[in-house]
Amino acid sequence: MSFNAYFHEVAAEVRNWGRWGDDDRIGTLNLITPEAIAAAAASVEHGRAVSLAIDLKHDGVQIGQIPTRINPVHVMGTIDHADLGDPDGKAMVPHFSDDMVTMGLQAGTHWDGLSHVSYDHKLYNGIPASTITARDGSTVLGVEHVKALVGRGVLLDIAGSKGLGRLPDNHEVTATDLDEAAAWAGIEIQPGDIVLIRTGRMQYYLEGSAQTYTMGEAGTADSPGPGIDAVRWFRRHDIAAAATDTYMFEVFPPSDWDNALAVHCLAVVDMGFTQGQNWHLEELAEVCKEYGRHSFFLNATPEPFVGATGAPVVPVAVF
Amino acid sequence: MSFNAYFHEVAAEVRNWGRWGDDDRIGTLNLITPEAIAAAAASVEHGRAVSLAIDLKHDGVQIGQIPTRINPVHVMGTIDHADLGDPDGKAMVPHFSDDMVTMGLQAGTHWDGLSHVSYDHKLYNGIPASTITARDGSTVLGVEHVKALVGRGVLLDIAGSKGLGRLPDNHEVTATDLDEAAAWAGIEIQPGDIVLIRTGRMQYYLEGSAQTYTMGEAGTADSPGPGIDAVRWFRRHDIAAAATDTYMFEVFPPSDWDNALAVHCLAVVDMGFTQGQNWHLEELAEVCKEYGRHSFFLNATPEPFVGATGAPVVPVAVF
Amino acid sequence: MSFNAYFHEVAAEVRNWGRWGDDDRIGTLNLITPEAIAAAAASVEHGRAVSLAIDLKHDGVQIGQIPTRINPVHVMGTIDHADLGDPDGKAMVPHFSDDMVTMGLQAGTHWDGLSHVSYDHKLYNGIPASTITARDGSTVLGVEHVKALVGRGVLLDIAGSKGLGRLPDNHEVTATDLDEAAAWAGIEIQPGDIVLIRTGRMQYYLEGSAQTYTMGEAGTADSPGPGIDAVRWFRRHDIAAAATDTYMFEVFPPSDWDNALAVHCLAVVDMGFTQGQNWHLEELAEVCKEYGRHSFFLNATPEPFVGATGAPVVPVAVF
Amino acid sequence: MSFNAYFHEVAAEVRNWGRWGDDDRIGTLNLITPEAIAAAAASVEHGRAVSLAIDLKHDGVQIGQIPTRINPVHVMGTIDHADLGDPDGKAMVPHFSDDMVTMGLQAGTHWDGLSHVSYDHKLYNGIPASTITARDGSTVLGVEHVKALVGRGVLLDIAGSKGLGRLPDNHEVTATDLDEAAAWAGIEIQPGDIVLIRTGRMQYYLEGSAQTYTMGEAGTADSPGPGIDAVRWFRRHDIAAAATDTYMFEVFPPSDWDNALAVHCLAVVDMGFTQGQNWHLEELAEVCKEYGRHSFFLNATPEPFVGATGAPVVPVAVF
Repeated sequence: MSFNAYFHEVAAEVRNWGRWGDDDRIGTLNLITPEAIAAAAASVEHGRAVSLAIDLKHDGVQIGQIPTRINPVHVMGTIDHADLGDPDGKAMVPHFSDDMVTMGLQAGTHWDGLSHVSYDHKLYNGIPASTITARDGSTVLGVEHVKALVGRGVLLDIAGSKGLGRLPDNHEVTATDLDEAAAWAGIEIQPGDIVLIRTGRMQYYLEGSAQTYTMGEAGTADSPGPGIDAVRWFRRHDIAAAATDTYMFEVFPPSDWDNALAVHCLAVVDMGFTQGQNWHLEELAEVCKEYGRHSFFLNATPEPFVGATGAPVVPVAVF
Repeated sequence: MSFNAYFHEVAAEVRNWGRWGDDDRIGTLNLITPEAIAAAAASVEHGRAVSLAIDLKHDGVQIGQIPTRINPVHVMGTIDHADLGDPDGKAMVPHFSDDMVTMGLQAGTHWDGLSHVSYDHKLYNGIPASTITARDGSTVLGVEHVKALVGRGVLLDIAGSKGLGRLPDNHEVTATDLDEAAAWAGIEIQPGDIVLIRTGRMQYYLEGSAQTYTMGEAGTADSPGPGIDAVRWFRRHDIAAAATDTYMFEVFPPSDWDNALAVHCLAVVDMGFTQGQNWHLEELAEVCKEYGRHSFFLNATPEPFVGATGAPVVPVAVF
Repeated sequence: MSFNAYFHEVAAEVRNWGRWGDDDRIGTLNLITPEAIAAAAASVEHGRAVSLAIDLKHDGVQIGQIPTRINPVHVMGTIDHADLGDPDGKAMVPHFSDDMVTMGLQAGTHWDGLSHVSYDHKLYNGIPASTITARDGSTVLGVEHVKALVGRGVLLDIAGSKGLGRLPDNHEVTATDLDEAAAWAGIEIQPGDIVLIRTGRMQYYLEGSAQTYTMGEAGTADSPGPGIDAVRWFRRHDIAAAATDTYMFEVFPPSDWDNALAVHCLAVVDMGFTQGQNWHLEELAEVCKEYGRHSFFLNATPEPFVGATGAPVVPVAVF
Repeated sequence: MSFNAYFHEVAAEVRNWGRWGDDDRIGTLNLITPEAIAAAAASVEHGRAVSLAIDLKHDGVQIGQIPTRINPVHVMGTIDHADLGDPDGKAMVPHFSDDMVTMGLQAGTHWDGLSHVSYDHKLYNGIPASTITARDGSTVLGVEHVKALVGRGVLLDIAGSKGLGRLPDNHEVTATDLDEAAAWAGIEIQPGDIVLIRTGRMQYYLEGSAQTYTMGEAGTADSPGPGIDAVRWFRRHDIAAAATDTYMFEVFPPSDWDNALAVHCLAVVDMGFTQGQNWHLEELAEVCKEYGRHSFFLNATPEPFVGATGAPVVPVAVF
């Protein structure tokens, strides 16, 4: 198994190396302009904010495939404790409760940072993968460089546009799917848009099965999601970032095993594309329907873990 | 030491128990209206977003006072790893890097949730502190109930309004200070505002000393911050939430030791007030000066840890 | 469900509260005398040491029933790192690799400490369960008080003595079983013995299934192990401690649901008995057979975590 | 800075590569024979067991030099919890408390495993350092291969033999020191001995200062400990393993900066020597004095973390 000629052809087509300089740290996020942010804010009508994050808890979406990508283990460090003492047990003094967590940074709703994916031992912009070390993490392309990530969010409800509750487990989201969903929503895609691709897959988890959510009904990891064709569409439209309501992000299995997980490589490594997974788009889809619009102001700033290859995010859409 | 008559008098004055029903989970955050959110969004002119979070890293602001409130320990779980195998070492296949963190939820820039503080073994709304358990955390007032926290943010630059780089280490921020800073900024405070109180304290940390940041120059934990008078002001103005650029939030030492840490109790327990610490307000102050305005659209949604008594947040101000 | 009259009768019979003073911290471990230790050491003939611990790793015996009892998550903190610098990349300077772990203290081969079990909100010796706090753990009966745990170990191979590879999934180990296994092994039980009860259950895990190991073949948590009758036998013989090669320690389901998990309560709370789980007794059984003897010198000192209610241990039997 | 000619000369002298085969995993631990173990056990007279571990707790010996080598953070996962339910609050049903820990594997009393040290990107036996990966840890020389580590322990009380409470902060322990301490103790060193070198340094920690323990009185990391000369002595005497009561193990600063941390490299990489740090030898020294003998049966089996480059140990000496 090794990427084939078609992969390399597309890689050359979508590659953004050098486009924002050799010292760039954020790739396609550069495409979000102040004008786009201001316009997105100006579009707010109702003052309604919708969180697109799943709850962080020990029985989250992870089922153990990746040893260290563990669901959040939340523990209390103190409970109702009198930090300044309470010798008489009177309790009419301040008491505190405090907590701690251990978790995979990509355990819940998250962004893949630009250093999450490599091939040929290279990251985005040709940075060597060896710049990621056990001691310091990603020393060049850490997720902390994102600072703030706000702009216009666009929901492309692929399942909804096809009249489906959710897409079949192995449905490849194509450029045509994306165009049709935009048309169905009456949206014109703009450079710098942050595209949220709804497949309906998250329903499995919300209905109680992390297992089906991650592995599909057949238990073979089949998943709907963007294929190579969609990556070309992202590049053609100069999309700033995209997220899905799936575990995998990209379609699985691939149409061609030579190009397995090619979307991750083309998007993150070649384009310098920030991509999100495990986003909760169900309520969002309802609200978009309610207001008859599929674009909104979006804040999706990742937690600034220094040297991290990805990070938790609580995306908030404002209508 | 036990809270004195003045404390109880103020407690009665500011208490919001029952105001939003017995089943309320978010206290003064109820004061943020859709209208306020829409107006804040409409105020965006420049499309400029400013993060108010400090970086999350092992050499953060914690110096070990609270055993489990540890700075983020970030580790790599995989580096440049071929998940699907790379038997020939060709590397022209996808490789991944992934990471994990262990941290106190209140280690960096964070909100204190409503279950962080108790006295008389009671939380906000009279909920028993015993609803917090080692197994499940805060079973009634967990921070996950906040969902989305957006609205109008207001910077009250107390240091700036006094022409100081930073306030003296034990300066009590009073109602007068708050009023003067609002007047200096030309801001009229509105119900539902999220107030960010700048003392300049964060400079110690940014200049390299977590020790001075947390303990003050004398090493005695002295800190500028709101006193009881300010809590009354928060209540009088129906402020939704407040945050400071300090470790402590409230002034220390207290003017009266009977009422040590009284602000935490009055604000969180009696008012049901969400309060933030370790916020990075330096760049924000510069930007406010640059644009000649001290209000902005603010998204400060906490990470939704279920049962948590506080949570990390990346506040983003948009101008 | 509530403990019935039989339970309380046995509780009165086996209770050791006050036997070693009100300030005792180690319960039946007091029964191990210097003479017994010296005799056990003197019995060593072959100089062969056998570890009774399972490996500590992310795919260990835990399958997620207890949120925080997670399998060891082992991560590297540095890899081949030049702590003193390696500016020229010459590498002919010292490099270091270092690691970190997060785990449930009872995730692998472990002892239950005396504060692991309570009923009627009381621990061994009548100590209130409230002496265990989120901040400090078990402030009276922490496992660190054990210091050293060495003595004579005795393998009672219940499965072997019955000519079975392993016991049926719900087999209750009775006093008769224990006596028969001792007779089969030619062992005379002595006060202060540390009894290792082999059921063969560990084979499921060693053959690859943590699921069957913990839940049994029917997936209902059925497990062979000591019942109430065996606790009476432990007490009658003044056994110092006992361990099994099972997840549960005691038989499950109980013969009487009123007394579910009664063995834990009678042994740990009433007797002050240290009990072990997930011990690897397969190689030990082979070695006992090879040498024709079922007693040995045993070191099973728990890791001294302060305030812990249980601890990892690498038991080593020496022949 | 790069190792000089003397280093390479000694490396050639002490190197054990290939001595126990190319597939060897344990180096000098091969030197412990069954006869030595049996003889050590036979030497037990008093049945007295002494732990040589410091307590594992959040205020342990680590002061933050190595980001992930954190002191044990012990937290409760459940406290007095009725796993099977306690609907009536009767509590006369089983309740459980359970805990979790996050720690550097070399945070407390530990062994350095054979993969802890490398130079020229090579580990013991010439194994490439690249066999240590973020995902799997040390895939060849993980500490789990040790299985059981028992044998004759010998206390060489360097401080005591010189009539000192503790050695000066930068005292190099030489071959002469080791010989004199052996003579003072009336011990004849034998192949396969496990040598415990007491400097008295641990007293700083036991008296309350982790800072002085790790950094010395001058705060410059000066530490007594074996120098290169001592490594040659270890090799000449075919010592199986050695441990000290210091943070560093070896003397610091080095007599020659070209050879900084050379002892780690010569011992672990060239000899394949297992070395221990942060051992508590104070009580041991007292007991040796009391019984008039400085050798004992020692069990010092590391916790079997798979792929680990070091591991916690509770060494127990039995007299």
